[in-house]
Amino acid sequence: MPTPRVLVTVERPLFQRISTSESRARLERLAESVTFNGGDRAWDAAEVRERIGGATAVLASWGSCAYDDRLLEAAPALEIICYAAGTIRSVAPPAVFERGVRVTHAADFIALGVAEHTLAVVLGLLRRTGDFDAAMRAGRWRDIGPVVDRELFGKRYGIVGASKVGRRLIPLLRPFDVEIVVADPYLTENDAQRLGVRKLALPDLMRTSDVISIHAPVLPSTHHMIDAEMLALIKDEAVLVNNARAALVDTEALVAELAKERFDCALDVFDEEPLPPDHPLLGMRRVLLTPHVAGLTPERRARLTDAMLDELERHANGLPLRHEVTVDQLESMA
Amino acid sequence: MPTPRVLVTVERPLFQRISTSESRARLERLAESVTFNGGDRAWDAAEVRERIGGATAVLASWGSCAYDDRLLEAAPALEIICYAAGTIRSVAPPAVFERGVRVTHAADFIALGVAEHTLAVVLGLLRRTGDFDAAMRAGRWRDIGPVVDRELFGKRYGIVGASKVGRRLIPLLRPFDVEIVVADPYLTENDAQRLGVRKLALPDLMRTSDVISIHAPVLPSTHHMIDAEMLALIKDEAVLVNNARAALVDTEALVAELAKERFDCALDVFDEEPLPPDHPLLGMRRVLLTPHVAGLTPERRARLTDAMLDELERHANGLPLRHEVTVDQLESMA
Repeated sequence: MPTPRVLVTVERPLFQRISTSESRARLERLAESVTFNGGDRAWDAAEVRERIGGATAVLASWGSCAYDDRLLEAAPALEIICYAAGTIRSVAPPAVFERGVRVTHAADFIALGVAEHTLAVVLGLLRRTGDFDAAMRAGRWRDIGPVVDRELFGKRYGIVGASKVGRRLIPLLRPFDVEIVVADPYLTENDAQRLGVRKLALPDLMRTSDVISIHAPVLPSTHHMIDAEMLALIKDEAVLVNNARAALVDTEALVAELAKERFDCALDVFDEEPLPPDHPLLGMRRVLLTPHVAGLTPERRARLTDAMLDELERHANGLPLRHEVTVDQLESMA
Repeated sequence: MPTPRVLVTVERPLFQRISTSESRARLERLAESVTFNGGDRAWDAAEVRERIGGATAVLASWGSCAYDDRLLEAAPALEIICYAAGTIRSVAPPAVFERGVRVTHAADFIALGVAEHTLAVVLGLLRRTGDFDAAMRAGRWRDIGPVVDRELFGKRYGIVGASKVGRRLIPLLRPFDVEIVVADPYLTENDAQRLGVRKLALPDLMRTSDVISIHAPVLPSTHHMIDAEMLALIKDEAVLVNNARAALVDTEALVAELAKERFDCALDVFDEEPLPPDHPLLGMRRVLLTPHVAGLTPERRARLTDAMLDELERHANGLPLRHEVTVDQLESMA
């Protein structure tokens, strides 16, 4: 394609956080023209329609409008939507693909951050680093109450959802000689073999894993998939992690199960964010809470635009995209 | 060798913690005879001398006496000392090797635990999981003050000491695409190449690494090797870990440097243990304290005897030991 004409629909404050001065300079070098949104919120569909006329590429992010038929009709030159965020379903409906507009996004780039965060909370809870620190500061040497520190080495690790995060997590776990089991209806036996994991039905995974982390997309079939029945299967002294989406877990059932203090749990996502100040989770033991930060440290967030410019450059040079979304992926994708 | 006659010099309460009922049954199956120490402290040299007469193997652990000439003269049948702990220097002086008694120990087995603990505290501090949890419980969403969460991915990781722990750590770090640099005067260029790391002088490692963990043995040359000068070189926002030995770091200088809150630090070892209740470290921010638990979770500790029985079995079957200590290793070994 000729040098791209880029429409940046992201509002200035967010764009500052997802780019660096180097990436902004790179964008201007790369493009024939760049139109920026100088406002303090993402442009809505009407605002994009007014400006998208000659643009060949869109750089969008959180808060983006959907690229529906009406919007696409106003964008006859549009070749590619670069979505500097993860969850793409609401932004790129099938109409986008039908018109031959390419879509790429940063889900895999963000997945690396989530995978790292997963291992951080798993190791922290297993080794009880937080409890040991608190005990020492309270004048107790090694006395952390009825709980016990334990290891990841040699355990069974259950991954719920062979998503981008689930797949990024596998190599981080390998050196610990864990047996990795995966529950995912979309995972073929061939794929499981290639990944070096064993497919297991969700109840079997829940019942037998020493560590369980959830990395599934929110779909009608996965809403509250981790319910009271599944939670009751979890082994004593296990670790459960949800840094994917709150809707995957029945929070009421989770709070009831966690009150038994049978196992440890790390949560990064909540039905309501910020978590309301009177939420029972805030007072619970054996629970590690983080405020929806698994995917993006500030340093990773600042490289989101660069991740998209890599894609835009590949498109401009006629190379295959690394993270192109296809219409048939949408069904099983967040 | 014929079926071993084993002297267990470890006191009963400790032996219970470093073995399971399975490993105790295995020991009795494996040996022609086993003499246990039923007391509540390890036998001293005189007590061992009285009992070691016909023994071909000793199973010792923390608190063991030294196997000096006088003791060895009373043990003409002794073939192997299995030391179910790490630091071997004071237990097996050169006399042991001169008499052809083989020595094996659990340092490598413990090293795995230390390596895992290292990654746990590094990821916890980088991702600030403890700070985020504390902030949420105090009613603050994402507000963790002037500090920032960051990642391990793509950083420079400095290993001080290519010891058993240092070497066990390398594969755990690999999937994070870190550049690994190692400071160790005993590491040859060939070995560095084989390990896939780059040798660096200690000051250069301290000055340029994003994460630094110390895994050196305590030797005259390493006492307080991390002094005020070295500490001053550490980058802002770096992470420093010492879960090796307190004597490697000048604690007074460390406390002074940590008071600046320039970087994060995890400590598992202290000049005095338990750490005295008025110690300044107990009130410091950006510091994660654990009570000398890096090497051995209760589950790993319970498998120490098994690790030694594996060695004893190899010896009995004429197979090479996996963790044999040689006299020329003693010099650079903890």
